[in-house]
Amino acid sequence: MSTLADVAREAGVSKATASRALMRPELVARPTLENVRAAAARLGFQPNRAARALTTGRTGMVGLVVPTLANPFFAPLVLGAQRAAEETDNHLLLTVSEYSAEREAALVARLSEQVDGVVLVAPVGSDAALRELADRRPLILVDRRVGRLPAVVLDTASGTAALVRHLLELGHRDIVYVSGPPGSWADGRRRAAMAEQIEEAGARLRVLGPLPPTFDAGIGAAAELPAGAGAVVAYNSYLALGLLHGLTAAGVRVPEDVSLAAADDLTALGATVPSVTALDVPVEEAGALAVTRLLEVRDGTRRTVRTLLPTRVHPRESTGRAPGR
Amino acid sequence: MSTLADVAREAGVSKATASRALMRPELVARPTLENVRAAAARLGFQPNRAARALTTGRTGMVGLVVPTLANPFFAPLVLGAQRAAEETDNHLLLTVSEYSAEREAALVARLSEQVDGVVLVAPVGSDAALRELADRRPLILVDRRVGRLPAVVLDTASGTAALVRHLLELGHRDIVYVSGPPGSWADGRRRAAMAEQIEEAGARLRVLGPLPPTFDAGIGAAAELPAGAGAVVAYNSYLALGLLHGLTAAGVRVPEDVSLAAADDLTALGATVPSVTALDVPVEEAGALAVTRLLEVRDGTRRTVRTLLPTRVHPRESTGRAPGR
Repeated sequence: MSTLADVAREAGVSKATASRALMRPELVARPTLENVRAAAARLGFQPNRAARALTTGRTGMVGLVVPTLANPFFAPLVLGAQRAAEETDNHLLLTVSEYSAEREAALVARLSEQVDGVVLVAPVGSDAALRELADRRPLILVDRRVGRLPAVVLDTASGTAALVRHLLELGHRDIVYVSGPPGSWADGRRRAAMAEQIEEAGARLRVLGPLPPTFDAGIGAAAELPAGAGAVVAYNSYLALGLLHGLTAAGVRVPEDVSLAAADDLTALGATVPSVTALDVPVEEAGALAVTRLLEVRDGTRRTVRTLLPTRVHPRESTGRAPGR
Repeated sequence: MSTLADVAREAGVSKATASRALMRPELVARPTLENVRAAAARLGFQPNRAARALTTGRTGMVGLVVPTLANPFFAPLVLGAQRAAEETDNHLLLTVSEYSAEREAALVARLSEQVDGVVLVAPVGSDAALRELADRRPLILVDRRVGRLPAVVLDTASGTAALVRHLLELGHRDIVYVSGPPGSWADGRRRAAMAEQIEEAGARLRVLGPLPPTFDAGIGAAAELPAGAGAVVAYNSYLALGLLHGLTAAGVRVPEDVSLAAADDLTALGATVPSVTALDVPVEEAGALAVTRLLEVRDGTRRTVRTLLPTRVHPRESTGRAPGR
């Protein structure tokens, strides 16, 4: 592998100049800069990141902490974040908190010494703990809002309210929300937004859960659906698939007996029989935007971020007129 | 935050001694070492990893490259790898290759300067490319074998052969394998192992796919199941769930008309109606073992690794006697 000395020789400059050109380009005249960069490219030279970190105080790494990978929500989120990091020549350091606030705090603390900033999907930690973490390094929250901390939020709250409106328009007056994940901030917002719609319409909202985002849990929810419920909204696609399976296996027809909808659209819901009404949620975009904005905060080109990404109801076959309406 | 100078002052030693104690403990007498460590602990001092990397040549980071996160296989794999890394005070740097051999090579090349070694789940890259990558840094393959390169392989090949034996014992003579992911090394091994069983028994094996590991693809496979097939083995749980949904929706009874089995057991297959026969695959263990062995190779306590982790058939309701047997 070629060294900085090789690059300096190739470019005909001193090692110090070559180093400055690669690490602090803003200090070097444009012709010199281009000369050194061309030499580095010819030699396939990659500046050692450890050395760069000591010189510039930047690691070129961005941390991403997610609560789990066993939720289809996080595959596109990670993909979006990774693409945004790579496009700006940064690396993504991904870790999993397993829905534990303690683990989350420990991970961010350990990460903060080796990354330039952290994208944190923190559904369960306390506001105070998150404020403290934000004191160490640039930090951006996803799907969580804590005071003025930078945040990118997917508006599934307005989205589930829109799903409820769609069901109310079909004549439903007895709606069940299968909630989760346990302790989730976004879920609290979804419940509040749905309750407001329901109250306005004088209808009834019952809440099951909170449950994990799994096919299994959906099968369990189907078995425990309260009598009289005419429509079910699940907060997650896999839950909805499990509900569809459990209801169908028990002889309950969707949508003739019970309407079904999901508050995200991350798996197969357009291909099932019947296809399932769902919420388009721009998860990959949220991941990419969180990284891009975080780097802007790191670079001082942006002071804070408060982005709310809209979601959209995608009506399909699984939601129909309420029985007898 | 406290600095190395603070720790040295607190311990009453020189900065050089404090540095050696924290970075190269093997060079420092035990009482001094304990003294410095206690001082560091009192002050909450965390040695800067960039500095440590320059001193020791170690980054304390392990790379993990997976082809996708949109496959339930990788959530437990990442979890196992992360736990093993953390237990040894290393960090896991996870990236996604999106099933592209080019991207895989680029990621490993970029990673290799900042990590001590790479765990690579490389289903599709060429042997030659993988050998070249292994020249740069300690590297361990998961679910792939290339000559003498270190590897941890989950024995789904013997496992799918055992699933086929289970079906043959139930009288099935016309079996379909829904294969994938596209281009996968492990899938080639599974096909070969199944074909051998089938040939011995004088039965028939037809192959669908390769298909992606999704519920959608399973629904598609159900629609394209060749006439006369009495049993289907899907390489993945979500495919099997999609197959179950598609078959049931089309009025095909499982297992009365068609038996169904899956070559992993990562989602809900014990909770469906009927429950689905599957293969127990120790995926989390594979992730943990790959990291542990990689660190042993890095530390020189192990020269190479060739581990084959056994899998086990878990018979459930979805596999029954062949019709007319």
